[in-house]
Amino acid sequence: MESKASAKTITGTLDDGLESLDLPAIWAQVRRQVRPTTFIESARLDRSLGHDIRLLLVSETFQETGSFKLRAALAAALHSEASHLLTASSGNFGAGLARAAALTGKQCTVVMPHRSAGIKIESVREEGARVDLIDTDQTSRADRVAELTRQIQGVEVVSPYNDPRVIAGNGSLGDEIFEREVPDAIVTPVGGGGLSSGLVTARDRMAPATTVVGAEPALANDAARSLRAGELLSCERESNTLCDGARTLSLGKLNFQILRTGLAEIVEVQETWVADTVRWLFDRANLLVEPTGALALAAVRQRPESFAGQRVACIVSGGNVDPSSYARLLSETASRE
Amino acid sequence: MESKASAKTITGTLDDGLESLDLPAIWAQVRRQVRPTTFIESARLDRSLGHDIRLLLVSETFQETGSFKLRAALAAALHSEASHLLTASSGNFGAGLARAAALTGKQCTVVMPHRSAGIKIESVREEGARVDLIDTDQTSRADRVAELTRQIQGVEVVSPYNDPRVIAGNGSLGDEIFEREVPDAIVTPVGGGGLSSGLVTARDRMAPATTVVGAEPALANDAARSLRAGELLSCERESNTLCDGARTLSLGKLNFQILRTGLAEIVEVQETWVADTVRWLFDRANLLVEPTGALALAAVRQRPESFAGQRVACIVSGGNVDPSSYARLLSETASRE
Repeated sequence: MESKASAKTITGTLDDGLESLDLPAIWAQVRRQVRPTTFIESARLDRSLGHDIRLLLVSETFQETGSFKLRAALAAALHSEASHLLTASSGNFGAGLARAAALTGKQCTVVMPHRSAGIKIESVREEGARVDLIDTDQTSRADRVAELTRQIQGVEVVSPYNDPRVIAGNGSLGDEIFEREVPDAIVTPVGGGGLSSGLVTARDRMAPATTVVGAEPALANDAARSLRAGELLSCERESNTLCDGARTLSLGKLNFQILRTGLAEIVEVQETWVADTVRWLFDRANLLVEPTGALALAAVRQRPESFAGQRVACIVSGGNVDPSSYARLLSETASRE
Repeated sequence: MESKASAKTITGTLDDGLESLDLPAIWAQVRRQVRPTTFIESARLDRSLGHDIRLLLVSETFQETGSFKLRAALAAALHSEASHLLTASSGNFGAGLARAAALTGKQCTVVMPHRSAGIKIESVREEGARVDLIDTDQTSRADRVAELTRQIQGVEVVSPYNDPRVIAGNGSLGDEIFEREVPDAIVTPVGGGGLSSGLVTARDRMAPATTVVGAEPALANDAARSLRAGELLSCERESNTLCDGARTLSLGKLNFQILRTGLAEIVEVQETWVADTVRWLFDRANLLVEPTGALALAAVRQRPESFAGQRVACIVSGGNVDPSSYARLLSETASRE
């Protein structure tokens, strides 16, 4: 699965190392070690959406570790000199980095809140990584990461989103989409901006006519506000949106540079649309998604007229949701056309 | 996607028309109109199973209409002279036949109990079929089908399992598996025997060294008892097993002929293993399955020592489960290694 893209360098004034990376080479490298994404489409889904939208679901729920994050983590691990990788994550990036470290023969430590779900802790440990549990009432993640950085020799801290290798790795998903077809639009969840930036850079090289649209929880709309203001803004505190993968306080700096011109717009998605879309995917696509995984399709369902008549690729970013939350989502939502 | 199998005829003394069908031609025909199956495997699943089993999940949950039944229905529709197809089904075969009729330009009527879930009725209607609701306290399905057969001109009644075209259509799933690889074993749910017979006939032609193992709910073990007795036995009444796709009272006659020599064995699966495996697939594979869809893997998990060291392809037959049942299954089971 070699990338078909040519190896021209990215244009612009990115100051954080993305321009020095050979993106198509990294996409090919990542794709050799991850599961291909799962494409799902059907006339039934299109009928239910209406507005002559032709939907292509691009699901990373069956990616190893259950989300797209392995792509980012793998690119970081492959292009790190360090023998030991360190990150703070209670979620998908931690599992992805643990797996990436295992694949590249490095050690790995993941700082996690001691209240993390048992199955999430277990999935990091199963990959052979060390889990460092902290009481977040006593110690901040940042402080603990700083402390471990001093203690562990040859360690490198990896950011889940604000890193050119992370953007390059996530771009491999764009490479897969454009190798299959060139949709009118790609809709992607926006948290720290690592996935959306990866898709924008792939689009710039492979399919310049495709628009990339962000989907962000209205409850955590720092990226939408940043794009409107033309400067990088933050949320004051972590939102309690259902979409735990999009609770980041702000975009990464590098990501903001890419997204401010690269995204056509950001749809601010209401929580009710997220919950309803988790259920919609259960009812109509037999697809099990975490709330953040439903965010892109929820944006389309909230504002279908913006996508009328288009072929729309919706990224389903992951499927790791704890069973009690999922059961509650199914019970509380009623299916609607 | 042409089949690679040669076109030799099946051996044996099948008296119901299977030997007159060109199976590889039908497999190719079906595969041109259905979604390819979804293969899922991971080191994490293998670790969790233990016994050096290398698992290949073969998931039909993303097949159009949400189960493998479209394959059977399509083969029947493509090889029917009738302009109108009729079946009695509250479940997956009804939706599959409705879709197959739409694809082949035929009319379709599906007799369903009036207490069927709204979303199941809707999914048949969405395909343009007529739903004939009956009060099963007043009228039996068989009586209503007989009545409609007299009323509708040019109608043909299609059995969900006891029909050579159904077996041929389901064999297309075997063709997909063997085109990818030749596993040591295929484990498949057994209800009326249409899917398992299809897999056995594909195995006989393409991969004679692969064993095919059936998985049947212990609560509805007519097929296991039939194989032991060497004659076709029935359950006296419909079982209340969780696996609603395997509540059939007996195997079809034609299927029994194929399965009595074609299956290596039938594992009689306990209900607790079915429920637990629905949850296991949620936790570890992000895969949403109906209870019957979990049956094959549940057989392997109940008796892993029988599959030690093998590459085992487990058929996940479908994903159509109503949300309240699924939420209950998630809440009532605890995950275990």
